[in-house]
Amino acid sequence: MAGRFERTGTVAFDGAGPVLLSSASVVGPNEGNGPLGGYFDLVLPDELWGESSWERTERRMLREGARLAVEKAGLRNEDMAFFVAGDLLDQIVSANFTAHALSVPFLGVYAACATSAESLGLAALLAERTGGYALCATASHHNTAERQYRFPVELGVQRRPTAQWTATAAAAFVVGAVGEGVRITHFTIGRVMDLGRKDPNDMGSAMAPAAADTIHRHLRATGRSAADYDLILTGDLGKVGQPITRELLAKEGVDLEKTRFEDSGLLLYDENKLDVHAGGSGAGASAAVLSSLLHRMRAKEFRRLLLVATGALLSPTTVQQGDSIPAVAHAVALEVGDEA
Amino acid sequence: MAGRFERTGTVAFDGAGPVLLSSASVVGPNEGNGPLGGYFDLVLPDELWGESSWERTERRMLREGARLAVEKAGLRNEDMAFFVAGDLLDQIVSANFTAHALSVPFLGVYAACATSAESLGLAALLAERTGGYALCATASHHNTAERQYRFPVELGVQRRPTAQWTATAAAAFVVGAVGEGVRITHFTIGRVMDLGRKDPNDMGSAMAPAAADTIHRHLRATGRSAADYDLILTGDLGKVGQPITRELLAKEGVDLEKTRFEDSGLLLYDENKLDVHAGGSGAGASAAVLSSLLHRMRAKEFRRLLLVATGALLSPTTVQQGDSIPAVAHAVALEVGDEA
Repeated sequence: MAGRFERTGTVAFDGAGPVLLSSASVVGPNEGNGPLGGYFDLVLPDELWGESSWERTERRMLREGARLAVEKAGLRNEDMAFFVAGDLLDQIVSANFTAHALSVPFLGVYAACATSAESLGLAALLAERTGGYALCATASHHNTAERQYRFPVELGVQRRPTAQWTATAAAAFVVGAVGEGVRITHFTIGRVMDLGRKDPNDMGSAMAPAAADTIHRHLRATGRSAADYDLILTGDLGKVGQPITRELLAKEGVDLEKTRFEDSGLLLYDENKLDVHAGGSGAGASAAVLSSLLHRMRAKEFRRLLLVATGALLSPTTVQQGDSIPAVAHAVALEVGDEA
Repeated sequence: MAGRFERTGTVAFDGAGPVLLSSASVVGPNEGNGPLGGYFDLVLPDELWGESSWERTERRMLREGARLAVEKAGLRNEDMAFFVAGDLLDQIVSANFTAHALSVPFLGVYAACATSAESLGLAALLAERTGGYALCATASHHNTAERQYRFPVELGVQRRPTAQWTATAAAAFVVGAVGEGVRITHFTIGRVMDLGRKDPNDMGSAMAPAAADTIHRHLRATGRSAADYDLILTGDLGKVGQPITRELLAKEGVDLEKTRFEDSGLLLYDENKLDVHAGGSGAGASAAVLSSLLHRMRAKEFRRLLLVATGALLSPTTVQQGDSIPAVAHAVALEVGDEA
């Protein structure tokens, strides 16, 4: 019964849908100052945005991203049949509070920084299955994540060279069963990989095996080669994880020479303005970068894009208990046809 | 485009599938001593089970539950196309580590104690869509949850009368696209409700509105009445939340007099042996109770069962920041036909 696609964790969508009807992004000032700054929908003036806590800022960014995505699709909240979301905070509080504000049937998901692709893939499944509109969204905030996973930013702890910079970013997408725009053609669900890495200051090394495994399984499931994609966008492997992933894929015979192989963590910041060390990261990073690139898909600059969102499933508790850091990567394949 | 079912967050499955091919449960000694003790697959001798931390015990319970469920279905891990799981711990670590051990494509979900129904519903969607086998599982452990959400058990803090007792329990289910057994007929996805409750020692009051909303929307979507179910099993409202839910539903015109309306948190313990105050709870509680009742469905004692898993989306951080506790409830309708 379980066919070739299923064993590789890949759902192949048929024909005309599901379709990305809209996207919207809300980012912090550092992200707004980066090379993609002009392509985000809203850039905050500062990290707090007038709220009493960064946690409140983060959830307001998620809510505002969702609001903008729905508005840009020419729809209303009440038109949304499902909301799929997650974030980096314990109990995915940003998603929960946003779901309450929206009052749309809600599935909470957690895959650390791979949440963007998990929520997008599930939204596509739900839209296809029911014909309804599915809204999905993710967010991260530099200061809430640092406080929860490493050190409160107020302490000014020196960061290690392999450390990544959690982005202050939220993005949301409206997925419809049919319509014009960028089609979602495949959803490849990742396996959890764990090669025994234990350093919360080096997530790139922990995530690389998961990224390589998911890309490899995706290509095998679809019978495609890397060259069939104009852009393979990982997020977020950074400077440390990206070359490891490239090397692991080369060993599996995956040739990345004929495609653009970019990492959202490396596209997000201008290093001359902000020293992010090994690159950006965060559940909102890959989602916001994807959102900022969609106009280039609509312009047919990229006809096929593979988003490979990578998540280090880091737990401060289990790291303190001596456990290693497992990681996962989920992939969503996007395509724009001649008709779009 | 969005029809009546979609607007109510309900996916109606067609015809012969998806089907619960097997289930398995692993519980702690207190749960094993309760009225359902004889219907769990494995009862631990103590809360630690020889591990070096309760977190490790919890993930081993989840892994063992998954192993037993796959074995009882007459299948192997390699036959599983998808694994959908979550738990109560930050970053759903029990699910992540189990997913690594299984090496099956994995979707992590978080809905607090509503995770059982969310993972079951998503497993049904994936099995139906792909024809592959989907394994789903949830776990909770009394001591890990108390430490994370309230106080470490070693402190011996007196519990309030409205407090619920987090169950040490894990359960797993194998869902197939077709086959013999208990069919999954509907998945109703909950909306996040928040009536401003702020007391982490009274989760029942926080969850009742979500439970009532999901039951009401499910009945509206399916055109059914409560009497069409032989058993509506909530989990876990406890002594405080159950009567509130009953009252809220009565106001909506939902008559519960002609159906059994039970709560898994109230079925799990023998109050003469363990004073659980307002009742049991925990992501593993409703899953393990459901698993323990399935033999009664196969015996046609219950032909239709509605599992309404309720989750208080409690975050120690946001409670300390003065926020209220949102809640969600997801429902899965099960049915056994004449052929089974």
